[in-house]
Amino acid sequence: MNKEEYFLEKYLKPYTKVSAKFPLEIGDDSAIISSPEDLLISSDSSVADVHFPSLLDSYYIAYRAIAIAASDIIAMGAYPEGYLLNITHPDPTDQWFEKFSLGIKDFNEDYGTNLIGGDLTKGELNISVTVFGKQFEKIIKRSGAKAGDDIYISNVLGLGKQGYEKYKKQILDLPNQYLKPKLLSVKTIKALQPYMNSAIDVSDGLLLDLSRICKQSKKGAVLNILEETYINTIDDLVAGDDYVLLFTSNSKHSESIRKTLPTSFLIGRITEEENILVMDKEGKNVNFEKLGWDSF
Amino acid sequence: MNKEEYFLEKYLKPYTKVSAKFPLEIGDDSAIISSPEDLLISSDSSVADVHFPSLLDSYYIAYRAIAIAASDIIAMGAYPEGYLLNITHPDPTDQWFEKFSLGIKDFNEDYGTNLIGGDLTKGELNISVTVFGKQFEKIIKRSGAKAGDDIYISNVLGLGKQGYEKYKKQILDLPNQYLKPKLLSVKTIKALQPYMNSAIDVSDGLLLDLSRICKQSKKGAVLNILEETYINTIDDLVAGDDYVLLFTSNSKHSESIRKTLPTSFLIGRITEEENILVMDKEGKNVNFEKLGWDSF
Repeated sequence: MNKEEYFLEKYLKPYTKVSAKFPLEIGDDSAIISSPEDLLISSDSSVADVHFPSLLDSYYIAYRAIAIAASDIIAMGAYPEGYLLNITHPDPTDQWFEKFSLGIKDFNEDYGTNLIGGDLTKGELNISVTVFGKQFEKIIKRSGAKAGDDIYISNVLGLGKQGYEKYKKQILDLPNQYLKPKLLSVKTIKALQPYMNSAIDVSDGLLLDLSRICKQSKKGAVLNILEETYINTIDDLVAGDDYVLLFTSNSKHSESIRKTLPTSFLIGRITEEENILVMDKEGKNVNFEKLGWDSF
Repeated sequence: MNKEEYFLEKYLKPYTKVSAKFPLEIGDDSAIISSPEDLLISSDSSVADVHFPSLLDSYYIAYRAIAIAASDIIAMGAYPEGYLLNITHPDPTDQWFEKFSLGIKDFNEDYGTNLIGGDLTKGELNISVTVFGKQFEKIIKRSGAKAGDDIYISNVLGLGKQGYEKYKKQILDLPNQYLKPKLLSVKTIKALQPYMNSAIDVSDGLLLDLSRICKQSKKGAVLNILEETYINTIDDLVAGDDYVLLFTSNSKHSESIRKTLPTSFLIGRITEEENILVMDKEGKNVNFEKLGWDSF
């Protein structure tokens, strides 16, 4: 058995489970998915020293990488069921893998998912996660926003940034949205999806991700900033790593949304005119140099 | 539009195609797969300076990374239909992406596949490919080998190593199994799969990959080396990067296999006893220090 097989067998295989949907045990060239319904798939790479510090506790490296990828499935109004892990690591050790596998275990327990396959290759630390999800009644796309739609976020902004600041000071108490992103539960996304016209997860900054909804929907938006409610500082509008859900909805659903998701905030409205206006509490226009995070 | 979106839009989107099976255009958080039948999935990372030289022409980086991942689908007796690409690159340029996208284009034309989604992140060069495949009548697993089965390889060994040696001397004429791995065609694998009991692709060295079949099948093997037929030197038995198919079959199919795959070689037999014996042409036992490639 070579090192790759040793680590996969010892630390990943325990978190796979054979099921009707994922019927093949780990150990072949491919995994099998048996799904008569449509499957959602999303793949995301987390790179050391770009998306997370290379010396981060590997428990969080795992949990965070899987959460970030799963967040894209939830952003389609669906829920994650299983995932493949491609781990690239310069020099894996038992200690690193022990904690990494606990991150897998906890994510699986928190969101009802399973690992369905994976591989390990040598190289700069890079965790690539491919998640498979199941839709409820409808799939929510970026392109579905209608003029007049209310714009919501599922929680306050800036928690990712705050979590990272705390981590840098070695304050590691939880909850920490950077170390261990909390996503919407299966129950919540199921209840929410009938009301949504469009959605995206806020990973690169609210304004950048909103601009993606607007672009795909050929619409614009007006945002009203009410500081001390959903942001701490204006920079929270362009900070990444929040992994809250940004979605739009016909205003007739506002009461249902408040009940389903009490942590949500109504932050603006979709417009016909294809640009994004941000208004402060005095009604003045706020301009931004950049809309969000760009790794390049 | 940030750099990630610019490159994805310009160089990857042209090689995606909306179909009944992959019905969602690139540009949302997830892709959709609509498949009433079982899907095979395999994910493989190719890392710069581990699996390929970082300065390799990006045409070959793309073609090779996709081929290596698709080879795992073919090794299940199935064929690749579509794939996701996770590209991690330290500093992408138009020039790099132009050639990379031509590699995608040519692979798609050669094997009838489509790109169904992808992302681009900053970091050390790493191409992670997740391939989706479709089975024919049966799925061929590593665990299916029976005592008495003939052991075949689909082509001679050592072409990957030879291709790499040529590349190092800057001899770039094709065919070159290292730069542009040639896989079995859809037609061939379809014709072959009814005869196979077990299969794996030779990526890490024949002996290592054969040991994986033996382990999963709880069997052993006797190999007969006939130099100047399917190997050039004894080292070809433990060289990686060949991407030929290693498979076992009941001997009653030998005539059918010869007709279906004239390039194949019968190299040995599966045994009840759980070890692998390699016999040279004088019938003497050959021992190996290592069975194949291990990146760690």
